[in-house]
Amino acid sequence: MKQSTRSRRILPLDASDRVSTGVLGLDELIEGGLPRGSMTLLAGSPGSGKTIASAQFLHHGASECGENGIYVSLSERKEVFLRNMERFGLDFAALEEQGSFKFLDFATTREAGVSAILNAVLKEAFSIQAERLVVDSFSALSLAFEKMIDARVVLHAFEKLMRQVNCTTLLLVEVPTGDSSLGLGFEEFVADALILFEIVEDEVGIKKRAIIRKMRGTDHNQNYSNIVVSDQGVVLTPYVT
Amino acid sequence: MKQSTRSRRILPLDASDRVSTGVLGLDELIEGGLPRGSMTLLAGSPGSGKTIASAQFLHHGASECGENGIYVSLSERKEVFLRNMERFGLDFAALEEQGSFKFLDFATTREAGVSAILNAVLKEAFSIQAERLVVDSFSALSLAFEKMIDARVVLHAFEKLMRQVNCTTLLLVEVPTGDSSLGLGFEEFVADALILFEIVEDEVGIKKRAIIRKMRGTDHNQNYSNIVVSDQGVVLTPYVT
Amino acid sequence: MKQSTRSRRILPLDASDRVSTGVLGLDELIEGGLPRGSMTLLAGSPGSGKTIASAQFLHHGASECGENGIYVSLSERKEVFLRNMERFGLDFAALEEQGSFKFLDFATTREAGVSAILNAVLKEAFSIQAERLVVDSFSALSLAFEKMIDARVVLHAFEKLMRQVNCTTLLLVEVPTGDSSLGLGFEEFVADALILFEIVEDEVGIKKRAIIRKMRGTDHNQNYSNIVVSDQGVVLTPYVT
Amino acid sequence: MKQSTRSRRILPLDASDRVSTGVLGLDELIEGGLPRGSMTLLAGSPGSGKTIASAQFLHHGASECGENGIYVSLSERKEVFLRNMERFGLDFAALEEQGSFKFLDFATTREAGVSAILNAVLKEAFSIQAERLVVDSFSALSLAFEKMIDARVVLHAFEKLMRQVNCTTLLLVEVPTGDSSLGLGFEEFVADALILFEIVEDEVGIKKRAIIRKMRGTDHNQNYSNIVVSDQGVVLTPYVT
Amino acid sequence: MKQSTRSRRILPLDASDRVSTGVLGLDELIEGGLPRGSMTLLAGSPGSGKTIASAQFLHHGASECGENGIYVSLSERKEVFLRNMERFGLDFAALEEQGSFKFLDFATTREAGVSAILNAVLKEAFSIQAERLVVDSFSALSLAFEKMIDARVVLHAFEKLMRQVNCTTLLLVEVPTGDSSLGLGFEEFVADALILFEIVEDEVGIKKRAIIRKMRGTDHNQNYSNIVVSDQGVVLTPYVT
Amino acid sequence: MKQSTRSRRILPLDASDRVSTGVLGLDELIEGGLPRGSMTLLAGSPGSGKTIASAQFLHHGASECGENGIYVSLSERKEVFLRNMERFGLDFAALEEQGSFKFLDFATTREAGVSAILNAVLKEAFSIQAERLVVDSFSALSLAFEKMIDARVVLHAFEKLMRQVNCTTLLLVEVPTGDSSLGLGFEEFVADALILFEIVEDEVGIKKRAIIRKMRGTDHNQNYSNIVVSDQGVVLTPYVT
Repeated sequence: MKQSTRSRRILPLDASDRVSTGVLGLDELIEGGLPRGSMTLLAGSPGSGKTIASAQFLHHGASECGENGIYVSLSERKEVFLRNMERFGLDFAALEEQGSFKFLDFATTREAGVSAILNAVLKEAFSIQAERLVVDSFSALSLAFEKMIDARVVLHAFEKLMRQVNCTTLLLVEVPTGDSSLGLGFEEFVADALILFEIVEDEVGIKKRAIIRKMRGTDHNQNYSNIVVSDQGVVLTPYVT
Repeated sequence: MKQSTRSRRILPLDASDRVSTGVLGLDELIEGGLPRGSMTLLAGSPGSGKTIASAQFLHHGASECGENGIYVSLSERKEVFLRNMERFGLDFAALEEQGSFKFLDFATTREAGVSAILNAVLKEAFSIQAERLVVDSFSALSLAFEKMIDARVVLHAFEKLMRQVNCTTLLLVEVPTGDSSLGLGFEEFVADALILFEIVEDEVGIKKRAIIRKMRGTDHNQNYSNIVVSDQGVVLTPYVT
Repeated sequence: MKQSTRSRRILPLDASDRVSTGVLGLDELIEGGLPRGSMTLLAGSPGSGKTIASAQFLHHGASECGENGIYVSLSERKEVFLRNMERFGLDFAALEEQGSFKFLDFATTREAGVSAILNAVLKEAFSIQAERLVVDSFSALSLAFEKMIDARVVLHAFEKLMRQVNCTTLLLVEVPTGDSSLGLGFEEFVADALILFEIVEDEVGIKKRAIIRKMRGTDHNQNYSNIVVSDQGVVLTPYVT
Repeated sequence: MKQSTRSRRILPLDASDRVSTGVLGLDELIEGGLPRGSMTLLAGSPGSGKTIASAQFLHHGASECGENGIYVSLSERKEVFLRNMERFGLDFAALEEQGSFKFLDFATTREAGVSAILNAVLKEAFSIQAERLVVDSFSALSLAFEKMIDARVVLHAFEKLMRQVNCTTLLLVEVPTGDSSLGLGFEEFVADALILFEIVEDEVGIKKRAIIRKMRGTDHNQNYSNIVVSDQGVVLTPYVT
Repeated sequence: MKQSTRSRRILPLDASDRVSTGVLGLDELIEGGLPRGSMTLLAGSPGSGKTIASAQFLHHGASECGENGIYVSLSERKEVFLRNMERFGLDFAALEEQGSFKFLDFATTREAGVSAILNAVLKEAFSIQAERLVVDSFSALSLAFEKMIDARVVLHAFEKLMRQVNCTTLLLVEVPTGDSSLGLGFEEFVADALILFEIVEDEVGIKKRAIIRKMRGTDHNQNYSNIVVSDQGVVLTPYVT
Repeated sequence: MKQSTRSRRILPLDASDRVSTGVLGLDELIEGGLPRGSMTLLAGSPGSGKTIASAQFLHHGASECGENGIYVSLSERKEVFLRNMERFGLDFAALEEQGSFKFLDFATTREAGVSAILNAVLKEAFSIQAERLVVDSFSALSLAFEKMIDARVVLHAFEKLMRQVNCTTLLLVEVPTGDSSLGLGFEEFVADALILFEIVEDEVGIKKRAIIRKMRGTDHNQNYSNIVVSDQGVVLTPYVT
């Protein structure tokens, strides 16, 4: 999947145009990768591996596919992100120096507001011609909305823009412990895909597992996978109870 | 079910006048199809196949039954819809050129408001003499209502108008993950029919299944069906656990 | 139960004065019928048969018992009601012509308000000396109340008036899918009787069943019945799981 | 338990002073009857027999114990109450003529307000020297309160007054179908006793059962009883599942 | 545990300084008694025995340990309390005459407000040098708070004052039927100890049981005990299902 | 892990830099200790041992690792804390005299407000160069926030500051009885780690157990541990049901 000669297209008619996720075991569950230009919700409990998987997504894009990426953080601070990802051999500092990665830190800027944040994101996305984007998290972003309808319209508009520039996007959604719903309830319908990273309790402790609930234009796998966090980051393996 | 010679009737007294859905396996569960001019809620989880099934409904009408159709989208953008449906051999671009299909995109227009949207829909419905209509989704539309009673009255008025022009309507209702209720709670009573597309979890992953909970004037099947998404789109098959 | 010579009484002291429901299998569960002049809640899920059963109640009264009836609809439009009931051999058009049935359609009149609607109902009830009344549905009507106490007082006043003219009343209550409570929570205490039409899920699909939860002045059956919708309309049969 | 020579006492020190309930099978579960001057919550589902049991309480008091009684109704109208109770051989009209029973009907008087209602109740209670009182229901009454603290203080004040005149009181509490809590949540703590009339569902239908959850100053039974409604009214029998 | 020569200490360093509860079977579960000067939540369902146990706590203190006590009631009136406790041989009238017990009745005084009530309590506590205090109930008291943070700060301040004068305090918390949470949700963290009196339902009726969920500075028992209400009041016995 | 010669670093690149917790059995579950400069949520039921464990964390730091610590209390008063900890051989008075420990008591200061409290904390943290911090509890602190977004931004800012000075922080979160969610729902995503101290009910009583749900940059154990409170304080042992 060599990308350097790929020109930007608004509407790729080839439904088989897939973006490899960089998460071992995931691509084969979704016809080879995420649909290019699509928006995926990656929803999960704290500690389920959302951040690591989305980091792999960006790193893989920048280092293997020639696709620049942006990490928009309302949750984790840059230094912490960089350091924690080093554990998995993901050297984002190097990518940043090459200009193929940007980390936008909005964790502590309240006054910015949603519009300002999205504008900044779009500006950066254009400036480095980003083809991959992660927002960590849409849950944090949506705290600033006062009306559900505003949130929905903004999400639609954002989705439209990202698709126009053919940028494949991951929106992380925080599922608090003890909660069985996802965010505001409409994101999962607006997004093209919904991947859940769950932490389930059993007799002796907790297990992590993933499931793909929805992916437009994709004949996706419908079984659970185990989430294993190894030195290769998040890896999905066939489900064992 | 040749339609070209069928004149418009306000009140067909023949209760056997049925509209074939274009979804393999569905018509035989509901006496041959949806009652002409009726309004059906198609409610479901994200990824359950609501959009594909409703696309089949419109495509089948336009290409096989001579019934023009309109897709009113507050959720998916036109380009994405067109492309995803190509996977199932549904060429809406061709239908659009013939004038037998229209896609109305309201996903990102907040200021429109419910009245403006419905007026636009009615205008288009009249202009192409639409006999099939899909609203994706009533959930999105209803975010704009501030009082439940307003939503109910508007839905009744809309149902009345659609029936007067004998236009068979599907209203999609989004059932968020972790939610067991449907929309605002009254739609299922106003509508003539209620079809659920469920995603259920079992030991190893998820399964999709359909059930018809209600259909006025119809001796409908009361068992689950499996939802299979193949290259023929959504197909309902006898239920296997 | 010949009614033509029965004069109107405010307070029938004969507790055995029963109104046959016209629903096969129901009368024998409730000492021969509903207490004359009483108010019954008929609560149920969408598609459970509430509308058909209440239509049978009115049709039976007008055609077999010489009791005029009124259907107050905030849910279904007249044409649809008439047509759907024809399937069960219930010819309301004929009754209407005889002056023994009226259909009041308030589905799309918001501005009316509760008082205006009830006044119109009372006026019509007096004009045809109605002895049977169906309100479809109290759920829709109650959306217009802003305070629970207002709703309760109005319901009491309405019950009083109906009893004074000895009119036996069915109030339909919509129980949305996924909801386990009934309406505002007090109707079931104000009403003289509460009949539930439930849709329950089992391994293979759905089943419909009825139960009488309450009936003042009546030694009612306490077991489930199956709800069968045949060409005779709703029929209650001994319960089989 | 001859009452005619019993003078009114503010604080009977004899804890064994019991008020027979008139409900067969109940007195022996609670040391012979309700503590004189106490306030009991009788909470239950619609149709569980609360009204009948409280009518028996008043009728027994007036006809057997020389204790006048008052039924304060915010739920049922007088005529209906009188007629339904006749079925169980309870002739309240006769008691009313003797001056030993009063029915206060507040079902349709909204403007009265809680204070006005309670004042009217107190006035009547004094006028006939009532020793038994039923309020049907506190749930209806409490709809008029805007703050929980007001409701609690009024309930305490009412309880104090009733105890001072040694009037034994039953407050009916409506437990709507699908609800597992009782009223506002504090009544059960203010009251001296809490008796639940439950309707439980089993495989084939519903069963009615009673349990005494609390009774101050009483070593009460802690097992369920079956509620049987026969021509003797409500009777409690040993529990059979 | 002779108290007459014990002087008041602000900060007893001897963690073994325990206050015997007077409830048979309880002291041995908590290292001999409640930590002196601590604040314990005694939370329970109606009828679970909270009031009796707290009365035993005060009576035992006054009659056996030379520790004066105060019962602050927002729930039960003095006369009722005195009379009901006589059943268990607890003669509070005698203690009151000796000046070793006070009953403060706030059940019907709304206007007082939380500050006024607590000031009155403190004043009385100082006047009789109270070493034991019961508030029945904190649930009733907390209805007067409009903000959670106010309630928390007041509770902390009250706890501080009581500890300074070394007064061991029981706060009763009302757990309404059908509720699984305790009060406002923070009391259990502010208090030093949490004892639950539960009423649980089984096949044939109800059972009462106690459990100690928390006790700072105490190696407390972690098993259920049966609550038996005999003529000795509340007694805790080893748990039998 | 000798600390005296360790200079302060803003961004330790060595992910293996761990802070020993002082809780026997915990360090080995989390690669030797908490990541230096990280923020951990320690969430638990009342009586689960949160306070004791966090006291051990501070005492161990000050007495064994040369790391000064601060306990910020909005829950327990200093005297009580000091005395209760003595039971476990934790002499904080001595540490305080040495200047290696501070107890900040905000339990009864409402007017302070969140900013004032955090400023005071930061000032003290700088003054004694604190490397360990406990906030008991974030639940109490967050009562002062009126908007969720404010709470989130403040928590992020606080986390940033603590990390800059390389201070390892424990935020206690109160999980009330009967509640299955944690605090406001976002803390667990902002924090680097989430440790739960649960109290679970079984047939005979309660058991305490711990689980690590999340720890960034750490390959943490995923099994339950038993929480044992002995004279050594909280000890985690392999899980036995």
